Amino acid sequence: MKILGVIVEYNPLHNGHLYHLQASKSLSNCDYTVAVMSGNFVQRGEPAIVDKWKRTLMALKAGIDLVIELPVVYATSTAENFAYGAVKLLDSLNVIDYLCFGSERGNIEELLEIVQILVEEPPPYKQALKEYLKNGITFAKARELALKKVINNEIEKILQTSNNILAIEYLKSLKKLKSPIKPLTIKRKGPLYTSLELKGEFASASSIRKHIFDRGLKDVENYIPNFTKEILKESFLKGEGPVSFEEFSKILIYKLRSKAPLEDIFDVSEGLENKIYKASQLTNRIDELIKLIKSKRYTESRIRHILTHLLLNIDKKIFEEFDGPNYIRILGFNKKGIEILKEIKKKSQLPIITKISHYKRKLNNVKMFEKDLFATDVYTLAYKNSSITGLDFKHPIIKI
Amino acid sequence: MKILGVIVEYNPLHNGHLYHLQASKSLSNCDYTVAVMSGNFVQRGEPAIVDKWKRTLMALKAGIDLVIELPVVYATSTAENFAYGAVKLLDSLNVIDYLCFGSERGNIEELLEIVQILVEEPPPYKQALKEYLKNGITFAKARELALKKVINNEIEKILQTSNNILAIEYLKSLKKLKSPIKPLTIKRKGPLYTSLELKGEFASASSIRKHIFDRGLKDVENYIPNFTKEILKESFLKGEGPVSFEEFSKILIYKLRSKAPLEDIFDVSEGLENKIYKASQLTNRIDELIKLIKSKRYTESRIRHILTHLLLNIDKKIFEEFDGPNYIRILGFNKKGIEILKEIKKKSQLPIITKISHYKRKLNNVKMFEKDLFATDVYTLAYKNSSITGLDFKHPIIKI
Repeated sequence: MKILGVIVEYNPLHNGHLYHLQASKSLSNCDYTVAVMSGNFVQRGEPAIVDKWKRTLMALKAGIDLVIELPVVYATSTAENFAYGAVKLLDSLNVIDYLCFGSERGNIEELLEIVQILVEEPPPYKQALKEYLKNGITFAKARELALKKVINNEIEKILQTSNNILAIEYLKSLKKLKSPIKPLTIKRKGPLYTSLELKGEFASASSIRKHIFDRGLKDVENYIPNFTKEILKESFLKGEGPVSFEEFSKILIYKLRSKAPLEDIFDVSEGLENKIYKASQLTNRIDELIKLIKSKRYTESRIRHILTHLLLNIDKKIFEEFDGPNYIRILGFNKKGIEILKEIKKKSQLPIITKISHYKRKLNNVKMFEKDLFATDVYTLAYKNSSITGLDFKHPIIKI
Repeated sequence: MKILGVIVEYNPLHNGHLYHLQASKSLSNCDYTVAVMSGNFVQRGEPAIVDKWKRTLMALKAGIDLVIELPVVYATSTAENFAYGAVKLLDSLNVIDYLCFGSERGNIEELLEIVQILVEEPPPYKQALKEYLKNGITFAKARELALKKVINNEIEKILQTSNNILAIEYLKSLKKLKSPIKPLTIKRKGPLYTSLELKGEFASASSIRKHIFDRGLKDVENYIPNFTKEILKESFLKGEGPVSFEEFSKILIYKLRSKAPLEDIFDVSEGLENKIYKASQLTNRIDELIKLIKSKRYTESRIRHILTHLLLNIDKKIFEEFDGPNYIRILGFNKKGIEILKEIKKKSQLPIITKISHYKRKLNNVKMFEKDLFATDVYTLAYKNSSITGLDFKHPIIKI
């Protein structure tokens, strides 16, 4: 029983994801696949376009055998926290043989070379990093410049894409955890994550979402599998999505005008705090708020993470209290997934959560899990049907 | 210079209001009129259908000379607090000769008789009240039954309408303040406040609002002056209203699910607190939330006041900190209004606020005033144009 692990969001699942999954299976030669997937809020720092159960169904239809939820605390944090949470969770299962992720060039060696420096921090690198940070540029940029000094490589190209940034973080986490999971990478196909154009064979999830928000499902048919289309169509008909960050504009602007404490939130520095409060006096919309704040120093991604954590009442202390997820929340599985679950039950130390009503009995510390419950209760405020509440307790596990 | 005072909401101003204003002027024989008006949130415990500047314009067009804002802390509280805040404000002006209000029967004597008992609390009344309260019925009902024991009168009829309840509270406040303002009452015309039918010569503001929300302005033309219609039409075209409580459903349900402390809010008892938290887990809408909670014991009105105070972050402590409004916030005036303002400047102890940017200089305690500013910033979250913010600082005083 060889088991492949993947870390996904499927927001929504498109042809590029399908390609990646098939390529990963054949590269790793695994016959079982486990996905750790973001729940109702994702790493971009916003709600997913449809909820976690709908995206779990997409995952199973695509050929994933078991879907486990990445706790929202990690799913909505920096690339480093996201990766650490997801890799630690996969590692804690004690059954995963390979982790396969996309990267721009599909070259695991050049990524490992970078990671070695980042983890070991040899003196020339550390010195350079320190110098650059003094000049007030972002950490990401300082790191890039410092790496350039010690590696004879096209370091900018490698670090500029979000796929590679995540890839490096996955590798860092594996190394840190001394995990036996073997990393593999697949060369990513299609346009960059940030491209919003729909053309060619593949489209990015961002461009697909943008087109769905602007014009519905019609334009994106060639870029998503038929099952994704059907799941999205049915969801939208029921008034369950597409969910955008704008649905939470009133809540967030209101909270900021009420001077909800920002200093308790991860990655908030004092200058940024005041910028955010001030901007909340100037607009009623989140997208405009972000535009007002973002700068070279404060990236859009950082602001989004902060706002999402504010929305979900996620305090930075939670990252100190936990070293990775303390539960395995099952979102869905197929028959092969049941076999994997049996293995996990035998080999993992973490409690497996299938019946939500039992969570208090199963967990010593419920804080992280209750953030997932709250995230769902916030997410469904965007649904047309106002009686949809407490969905984590009511929604069945997805089985196909 | 004889000056009439009225306490209004004009939500929106309709023909019944117009009748009341003209009748009050002729009964009091005054040639100047000052209105104390609720701002962006009203006594029903919800947002006004259009903002305070639009309703000020209606008031001036109807023949009011000077419009003063009733601080939101009082405007959104119980009948007792509402009346006390408004009467105290009128009294503090030191220029008002008469206060004229509507009542169902237009009989000031029978109202004064009731008020005497309520203020002096003779032993038979006090005893009876105590007995009834023991049985767990609402204070309003216990008071009614106790009054019935000591007054030979159709007390139920008198106390059952919100107009009379307010009338009694106005008289109580005048008595408490030993105010020189002479009370007058006009028999109310048209259907009861609670009637939602549109028929006959007059319609209630509630029925007019309901029809506007359901079907726009068409049905209500016969019940509102033309200027009201034009002001509403223009506002709606700009996406500024009609504003309903539902616009704030997400914020309120979110706050309740976040366990925002209810115990700090006026009129919250422990049983009610838990009922409200529980109900917030069952629906995403405010109207449904209220339906789930309301009972003989917890009236809809009480729940609405609590939710509005939660929305506006109004803590019950503010009622202890202040004994009535500590400022005179001018919303609008005509030429005669300027004359009244000159008189007020001479005779009143309270600071007059016309330029909002000066409020910190003018007020020793800014807390109550800042609640008005915050209320406006919450209110305009319901506007289509997302750049409308900080309106108290930007909107000119209404002058005609």
